[in-house]
Amino acid sequence: MSTIKRQKSNARLSGVVTYNGIAYLAGLTADNLTVAIKGQTEQILRKIDELLTLAGTDKSRLLSTTIYISDMRLKQQMDEAWLAWIDPQNTPARACVEARLGAPEILVEIMVVASQRE
Amino acid sequence: MSTIKRQKSNARLSGVVTYNGIAYLAGLTADNLTVAIKGQTEQILRKIDELLTLAGTDKSRLLSTTIYISDMRLKQQMDEAWLAWIDPQNTPARACVEARLGAPEILVEIMVVASQRE
Amino acid sequence: MSTIKRQKSNARLSGVVTYNGIAYLAGLTADNLTVAIKGQTEQILRKIDELLTLAGTDKSRLLSTTIYISDMRLKQQMDEAWLAWIDPQNTPARACVEARLGAPEILVEIMVVASQRE
Repeated sequence: MSTIKRQKSNARLSGVVTYNGIAYLAGLTADNLTVAIKGQTEQILRKIDELLTLAGTDKSRLLSTTIYISDMRLKQQMDEAWLAWIDPQNTPARACVEARLGAPEILVEIMVVASQRE
Repeated sequence: MSTIKRQKSNARLSGVVTYNGIAYLAGLTADNLTVAIKGQTEQILRKIDELLTLAGTDKSRLLSTTIYISDMRLKQQMDEAWLAWIDPQNTPARACVEARLGAPEILVEIMVVASQRE
Repeated sequence: MSTIKRQKSNARLSGVVTYNGIAYLAGLTADNLTVAIKGQTEQILRKIDELLTLAGTDKSRLLSTTIYISDMRLKQQMDEAWLAWIDPQNTPARACVEARLGAPEILVEIMVVASQRE
């Protein structure tokens, strides 16, 4: 038996939902949107670290991730932050596609599924 | 042990697939596409209610959702329907991104993952 | 208890990650990008077959899939390959949306979640 646990929740969405050993994170964006995509990605990855900690896990247990970027020409700069952050021995399944995001200055949004520690 | 159960299926896709306590719903669009995005979202949310019922669950057990809207400027109107529908104590992880959908008159498509009741 | 298994991995992402009976595949694109979307889709579906085999499962156990196509007008041609490949008795939940992909010549990218055999 397992219980659904919701954290960093508001009336619209939850930052992280855990159930049956899996953590589902919201699509995360940067708070400081005045910086370029690499800096925005770094902010998001720090938020992911925090939410994974709340969920009792860490980036070595990522399962799947979807990365939305506002302009595919920025992919390499996003990837610089990704490659500096990711555990190279424990990389998730990943898709990266272009999508316009919540506001023009939002250059990247990342959604992650991870497993909790056992 | 668990069995994969597929409901509302055709030769292309299934409306809802359940396995090991999780319900995976198809990307849903409205049937009446002559209405604005708020009305289309309301139709989709009713379909989600129906599919969750078929899967033995309900909107209080949503885990994750991806919302695609055809124009980000319509997000607030989509969100009016979302906020009126969602269980505010049990909100899922959520991403909302812009994407052109199956036809120009389709303004919103929603894909949901939920847990079944135990 | 379950272990996370990663296959076809590099320092950026894994082709397939399995955990607790579920296989999460990366967003897959074709290798030969000189062909039209139907041919690209066929290549991707062969890759999915291979990754599902590595994960100890097959296309009869698909749970959910997200299909990104670069131009919604190409959906029917993508679907010809999909319909020829999919097990019509065992179709997954599916969403298909338009998104610009990693390079202009990439016309389709597919991400799949499946269950392993028991």
